[in-house]
Amino acid sequence: MLNVSIIGGSGYTGLELLRILLNHPFVTIKSVTSRQCAGKQLNEVFPSLPPLNLSFVDPSVDDISKDSELVFTCVPHKTAMDIVPKFLEKGIKVIDLSADFRLRDKNIYETWYGPHTAPYVLKDVVYGLTEIYRDSIKNASVIANPGCYPTSVLLPLIPLLQNNIISHENIIVDSKSGVSGAGRGLSLTSLYCEANESFMAYKVGEHRHTPEIEQELSVASKKDVIINFTPHLTPLNRGIFSTIYCNILQKDFDVASFVALYYKDSPFVRIRKGNILPNVSHVRGSNYCDIAFKIDKRNGKLIIMSCIDNLVKGASGQAVQNMNVMSGFDEATALNIIPQYP
Amino acid sequence: MLNVSIIGGSGYTGLELLRILLNHPFVTIKSVTSRQCAGKQLNEVFPSLPPLNLSFVDPSVDDISKDSELVFTCVPHKTAMDIVPKFLEKGIKVIDLSADFRLRDKNIYETWYGPHTAPYVLKDVVYGLTEIYRDSIKNASVIANPGCYPTSVLLPLIPLLQNNIISHENIIVDSKSGVSGAGRGLSLTSLYCEANESFMAYKVGEHRHTPEIEQELSVASKKDVIINFTPHLTPLNRGIFSTIYCNILQKDFDVASFVALYYKDSPFVRIRKGNILPNVSHVRGSNYCDIAFKIDKRNGKLIIMSCIDNLVKGASGQAVQNMNVMSGFDEATALNIIPQYP
Amino acid sequence: MLNVSIIGGSGYTGLELLRILLNHPFVTIKSVTSRQCAGKQLNEVFPSLPPLNLSFVDPSVDDISKDSELVFTCVPHKTAMDIVPKFLEKGIKVIDLSADFRLRDKNIYETWYGPHTAPYVLKDVVYGLTEIYRDSIKNASVIANPGCYPTSVLLPLIPLLQNNIISHENIIVDSKSGVSGAGRGLSLTSLYCEANESFMAYKVGEHRHTPEIEQELSVASKKDVIINFTPHLTPLNRGIFSTIYCNILQKDFDVASFVALYYKDSPFVRIRKGNILPNVSHVRGSNYCDIAFKIDKRNGKLIIMSCIDNLVKGASGQAVQNMNVMSGFDEATALNIIPQYP
Amino acid sequence: MLNVSIIGGSGYTGLELLRILLNHPFVTIKSVTSRQCAGKQLNEVFPSLPPLNLSFVDPSVDDISKDSELVFTCVPHKTAMDIVPKFLEKGIKVIDLSADFRLRDKNIYETWYGPHTAPYVLKDVVYGLTEIYRDSIKNASVIANPGCYPTSVLLPLIPLLQNNIISHENIIVDSKSGVSGAGRGLSLTSLYCEANESFMAYKVGEHRHTPEIEQELSVASKKDVIINFTPHLTPLNRGIFSTIYCNILQKDFDVASFVALYYKDSPFVRIRKGNILPNVSHVRGSNYCDIAFKIDKRNGKLIIMSCIDNLVKGASGQAVQNMNVMSGFDEATALNIIPQYP
Repeated sequence: MLNVSIIGGSGYTGLELLRILLNHPFVTIKSVTSRQCAGKQLNEVFPSLPPLNLSFVDPSVDDISKDSELVFTCVPHKTAMDIVPKFLEKGIKVIDLSADFRLRDKNIYETWYGPHTAPYVLKDVVYGLTEIYRDSIKNASVIANPGCYPTSVLLPLIPLLQNNIISHENIIVDSKSGVSGAGRGLSLTSLYCEANESFMAYKVGEHRHTPEIEQELSVASKKDVIINFTPHLTPLNRGIFSTIYCNILQKDFDVASFVALYYKDSPFVRIRKGNILPNVSHVRGSNYCDIAFKIDKRNGKLIIMSCIDNLVKGASGQAVQNMNVMSGFDEATALNIIPQYP
Repeated sequence: MLNVSIIGGSGYTGLELLRILLNHPFVTIKSVTSRQCAGKQLNEVFPSLPPLNLSFVDPSVDDISKDSELVFTCVPHKTAMDIVPKFLEKGIKVIDLSADFRLRDKNIYETWYGPHTAPYVLKDVVYGLTEIYRDSIKNASVIANPGCYPTSVLLPLIPLLQNNIISHENIIVDSKSGVSGAGRGLSLTSLYCEANESFMAYKVGEHRHTPEIEQELSVASKKDVIINFTPHLTPLNRGIFSTIYCNILQKDFDVASFVALYYKDSPFVRIRKGNILPNVSHVRGSNYCDIAFKIDKRNGKLIIMSCIDNLVKGASGQAVQNMNVMSGFDEATALNIIPQYP
Repeated sequence: MLNVSIIGGSGYTGLELLRILLNHPFVTIKSVTSRQCAGKQLNEVFPSLPPLNLSFVDPSVDDISKDSELVFTCVPHKTAMDIVPKFLEKGIKVIDLSADFRLRDKNIYETWYGPHTAPYVLKDVVYGLTEIYRDSIKNASVIANPGCYPTSVLLPLIPLLQNNIISHENIIVDSKSGVSGAGRGLSLTSLYCEANESFMAYKVGEHRHTPEIEQELSVASKKDVIINFTPHLTPLNRGIFSTIYCNILQKDFDVASFVALYYKDSPFVRIRKGNILPNVSHVRGSNYCDIAFKIDKRNGKLIIMSCIDNLVKGASGQAVQNMNVMSGFDEATALNIIPQYP
Repeated sequence: MLNVSIIGGSGYTGLELLRILLNHPFVTIKSVTSRQCAGKQLNEVFPSLPPLNLSFVDPSVDDISKDSELVFTCVPHKTAMDIVPKFLEKGIKVIDLSADFRLRDKNIYETWYGPHTAPYVLKDVVYGLTEIYRDSIKNASVIANPGCYPTSVLLPLIPLLQNNIISHENIIVDSKSGVSGAGRGLSLTSLYCEANESFMAYKVGEHRHTPEIEQELSVASKKDVIINFTPHLTPLNRGIFSTIYCNILQKDFDVASFVALYYKDSPFVRIRKGNILPNVSHVRGSNYCDIAFKIDKRNGKLIIMSCIDNLVKGASGQAVQNMNVMSGFDEATALNIIPQYP
């Protein structure tokens, strides 16, 4: 059994880790920490959970390190950079769900997020997009779990850029997210009456997932990729849908078959052909990324549709997928969740 | 392995049976039938499902009977009464999700639904409210799976009536259902723009679940129980919430502890105490029935709140629970689904 | 022209007052106050509003009293009791949307809300349920605008109790509210992901609208009325739906026609007959209260369905209706809003 | 008074015309036709409407022509091409809300929609994008009321193309629509449980509004414009949000001020500057089109956000706006509707 702890477990990603890990046959949850909820039963904070007799705690890194072999850090960025190095020093493996270690270049991080206090960790970090970095993840001690938007964008684009099927220029990403992407914190835009019957773009040209996407696309294409990225907020609990516009270099290329082959050993990537197009409702609650391609022959544009559940493949599900790979378990263990529809 | 088939599998209850049974370790799905969808892949009709390589078929009862030991009939009422007897004649066990065999008295059935063509089956039917009829279900050949509203109402009330804790008179049931209760058929009231930002009562004093609830309450209380039942439609996909008003006979009785004890061996009934009240979001996707009690000491009323996921405990989940009991499997097999929140 | 100001205008009731009053032919809005938003343009805080060139201000009572003849106080209870008397001293008419002056009996107020610092005002207050107290409102200097739940409950019940058509005992009120009833403040239960796909009861047997309802029902019946009141939260922006159960004294009485006659001069009460039942979507954005009646002859219960838009008839619309009556305008001025459907 | 009739009034655009026209001081509604609902009271089909004592009828063109000076045709495309010419022959003005007369080139129409049986009418048709074609609309006898998507896309783009501020190449339009855009007909994708908690693209590269948008952009730019247009379905009742990506020719151009000046006499176009970005909730129920611009200086892309209420500015509101212009009324008559928020 693998002993794990969840650091900062009182938000939606913490709850989603619990939902998945409580069904994991090879994992024991040792501690779930939360400064704010310490002392409360997990069931009190999250009444959806089954009876557990487990309380939130607020122990020291030392205490957690005594009985945990791996921790999931679900704390905000800027906090993660303080905590993650401490676990690594103790020899504890870390899967970090914050943004703090996703950008390999400290300078780019600091442009978008401000000062980084633990840049020396960056060289050891593996970017946890499982399907792409599976081999490096196997031996990693610290994983930067990808952002939700980047996961939905990178899975379809990386195979195409690696193989020069599309141009690395003029890539436009128009993404739509459900409200749980903003977390469980109190904010005006997260209120029901503000988000319901509402649709808007936000942080246009300024969203912090932009450099993360560009970093990985640049690695794939071996060129500097600059994209347009526009996130939108849409009234649903879960789900990210990305519509991506790019220029295909060979108009008659069978993109869907190529990408399906590329991911033939990746159980969570579903390439849609024919009449079935991706829909966030088809992946709800699951670790799937559904992808479809359409070439507009009138102007040579390739339109890509890609969707995930932001709390699963976009956060906690992919984190468990990475844990499975790091621990030698079957990659899909505890993740064979059939989407809940409707 | 138990070989089962799903008869009429192209609706939401069929899909939900698939979601549960595909994870069942002791069940093999032999056929999923649908006249309308015959020939289509299950994934084509329900793209949320994982890759299955299984198609809808439209075989004869004979053909199904060759390889199935148990069938779930998910056809409309009036159709079930034609099909169920045919399977029983072949020695196939049946769990019927329609209303056709829920009312023990043919005359009451005919008052609410019209002519019954297979009343001779009624004597063999066990009403499939698992927690109450577990022992009879073990040896049953045909189960009438309870309606969604009745399940939410009966679980809290039966222990109280059996033990004379409340009066059998003046029971008022005010229930609220999500839209999936109406199924996947096309109707004006099921349209998004009609049901969204909408709340209404319907079939006031006339809903067909009324005699079903009254039948079981009368059995429990050994008196003729007449209730008021008012169903409402509320804008959510899944969930039934019933608020029940009744007269408690002993004002200081600790109802919650009593009912918790009554259901101590029933893993899917959760009695809520303290500050946590039932919410359909706490049971979404799961087989739980969450119940809370509150006595208004000013007038001796007991207010009961009860909620379920109408597609799980209110339909397909309870059907699988009954199958487990009939087959000697642990009652919770494949049903340990942690609710998806949010 | 009537000069009015809105005190505490940065919430949903303030915005709704603006939506209505900006179309009022006989009203000039002098000031809209907000401590929190002072200095900001109204359009900045509420971009839905048309271009206005009007800013939130935070002036003294003195300053407002110089140019306003009537104020709408939209501040929280406990704050209203400080402000309202000051305006009254200056001879300014007040329509108070808080709960502070709704309960005539200081002791009952203090049981439910805590200390009242301005009980001497209570004797002058008229309870602003326009249809019932129209004559007193004409000459009132201070109006306690009714709560949203009470409005939906009192309009159907008062005519029946006044005329001994129903018993004053065993009245059960099961109400369901949209999320805007909780205002625009930040709270966990008001978050989109908490309220969406969610349905729950809250404050069961403890909601502060209970004594307000009981007060007015007792006046109508000339007996002490004690009710059961259970509010629920339902996922919609606007709307309250109340289902009321009571005992009818004459089983064959034509309740609908009687109540329709009672309200024949009240343009905002619509009595539904035949197949059309009330639905919050039918009143959205309007000042209507839609009501239907159904007698369950099996047990003599009268089931009443009643719905309003909580922000209009349940708050700002009724406030303007009261202002119209107080000012000698036609009662429906600026309130002939056709519901927006869908 | 202008006598008008609504042909095919039982859908959402018919209802929305009624909501607006019933408040129009210079219009009398003579007939509302519907084959399906003939004989039923309007209030019976649309209980949201105020008491009207008006029934759906199914008269001949002759009968309508006797008392109506102008008709709104809300029938499906292919049906409109039969009816519109008949009214024109009688000298009745027509505002057609279908797609049948929007494309000036019969051949393009036939490529996307199939045979056109009344191409001789096309030469008289004025495309009813009021802000652009106001002068021609004044004297028109037949108006092709624009599609909902095109309205949201054309209003921001036309001024920029007319003035060579952006390139006519590589324009990408990513649009998101609420469900009412699909009308009130019964279809699987319009069901609540299918559309709620759902987000998908549809008719990718194939939507029939594509040639309509391209036609008007080509007129504006005097070049053949080919765009990418991807519509999406988002879970809200009303609203279209279009995100448009194009190449700006002068990177430092103040686009917002330019377009604001362009529309200075158009009361329904609101150009957003600063922090306030368009949101469908800001225009709900109103005739506004809210637009914002953002230049991504890293790659010279201009990102345009534009939103409307699809049933108002995208259909019935714009139709009334056109009627006002045709009839010499103030363009905003009956359209000064303040958006309902939340």
